[in-house]
Amino acid sequence: MGERNGHLVIIGGAEDRIYGKKILARFTELAGGSQADIVVITAASGLSDQMWEVYRQAFGELGVINVSHVEISSRADANSERTVGMLSRADGIFMTGGDQKRLLALIGGTEADRALHAAFRQRGAIIGGTSAGASAMSGQMLASGAAVPQPEKGAVSMAAGLGLLQHILIDQHFSERHRLGRLLTAVAQNPCLHGVGIDEDTALVIERGVGIEVVGEGAVTVVDGRHMHSNLAHIADRENPEMIDVRLHVLPAGSRYALPTGGRADALPASMLDFLRKVINPHPHA
Amino acid sequence: MGERNGHLVIIGGAEDRIYGKKILARFTELAGGSQADIVVITAASGLSDQMWEVYRQAFGELGVINVSHVEISSRADANSERTVGMLSRADGIFMTGGDQKRLLALIGGTEADRALHAAFRQRGAIIGGTSAGASAMSGQMLASGAAVPQPEKGAVSMAAGLGLLQHILIDQHFSERHRLGRLLTAVAQNPCLHGVGIDEDTALVIERGVGIEVVGEGAVTVVDGRHMHSNLAHIADRENPEMIDVRLHVLPAGSRYALPTGGRADALPASMLDFLRKVINPHPHA
Repeated sequence: MGERNGHLVIIGGAEDRIYGKKILARFTELAGGSQADIVVITAASGLSDQMWEVYRQAFGELGVINVSHVEISSRADANSERTVGMLSRADGIFMTGGDQKRLLALIGGTEADRALHAAFRQRGAIIGGTSAGASAMSGQMLASGAAVPQPEKGAVSMAAGLGLLQHILIDQHFSERHRLGRLLTAVAQNPCLHGVGIDEDTALVIERGVGIEVVGEGAVTVVDGRHMHSNLAHIADRENPEMIDVRLHVLPAGSRYALPTGGRADALPASMLDFLRKVINPHPHA
Repeated sequence: MGERNGHLVIIGGAEDRIYGKKILARFTELAGGSQADIVVITAASGLSDQMWEVYRQAFGELGVINVSHVEISSRADANSERTVGMLSRADGIFMTGGDQKRLLALIGGTEADRALHAAFRQRGAIIGGTSAGASAMSGQMLASGAAVPQPEKGAVSMAAGLGLLQHILIDQHFSERHRLGRLLTAVAQNPCLHGVGIDEDTALVIERGVGIEVVGEGAVTVVDGRHMHSNLAHIADRENPEMIDVRLHVLPAGSRYALPTGGRADALPASMLDFLRKVINPHPHA
């Protein structure tokens, strides 16, 4: 397994766990199929046993023989040898929904956090996360914020995420919960970040150093505010900022983009190449 | 009144007609205040008498003495001397909501249509429209289309509008009815047009040759697809197109932009200057 690049499977919540299970099947396939060692982190959820039961059944139905529950209800659990051992052996690590702040409060900065990064970067393991588990993946995490109809200064708050991705902000249940206003707000306040909104039953699959793919039923919406003109610095909290020249990409399921090799960089629009370089992180230590 | 430039007051529907009436008050003020001759075209609506009653009362409460109903229930009505006379004398012409296809079916290409253009272009009259009356103003009109969560090929259909604006596509009830997916669809299919989504109780006010202002409670969202990369030409109907590098502007109420004079063109972001030139139409005969 040493030659695996590592994948992130970032799911917008409400992925099919009963019928076709397209996204969970892809996660399983990437992790190595029915022989893969898959572990499920339910720490984002206050109902972790019920959450575990849902995924135990789903992965079981996908033919996975070794699927285990990483039970973390305290930071001590997250630092335990048992937890680190499970994460260090896993081919696929799946983080369920719940509340991303709860997930980070329990595992942020622990041995589990370190083991997760090592699994991804050193062993090329597959890290999946849905809903809260998706939001938690980036270094800058959307902590809370209402689905405002228009961008509104101060309407979202941020927190430190796991940092498997950098310079990215992930939102989920994106079209279904009408979260463009909230993602635009986050980008207006943090124009150095790309906002990534992922629809339900849809995943952004990132192969480290190689490329990305959108899998599932909806789309991935990317909001790039780096070229934006805005008056955000000059307005009061709760006022609506002007935002001019935000770049928007809508990537439907089935979209695939790979870093061009052999001087074919012009095969991709410059802004997509730029986004791609950011998320696939070809030089993680740069 | 000969020196008036002409204004369009393009309202996203559901403007306040009872309390502050901010937008209707602005329309009235631009038309000349309580002494203005204001006429109301209800032809978009199948309940034109009830619609007229709402605006008769609203403009009456705003102190307008001369407010009249242009009754058009057939193309003969739209070609009648009475109709043309009313439009030719009006300081302000207001088009209510209903169905923009009905409005165009009744007045498109008639003497009323010609009188409306002459009022705006030659006499500098104020043309207001809300909801269907807003959609109808541009040359290319959104005729129908569901509020798809993601852009979807074939999900919207277009028709010929009144053409008081060109190269623009107007949608209304924009944030409230979650119509970004539909506006993106329209722009994906017609990348030569700027999509303009106007929220409820919000107006894009355009002073011909001069500038624009956003009035009311919500925002105006502009979608510019001219730099877009898309696979729309290569996918089947009902599939979701890829859209990369759409330019998005969100202009909250209170925003004002004027065409710079005396070489100050760099005071505006280039893309806003470009949008401005398009909508204010400084050279209408060019």
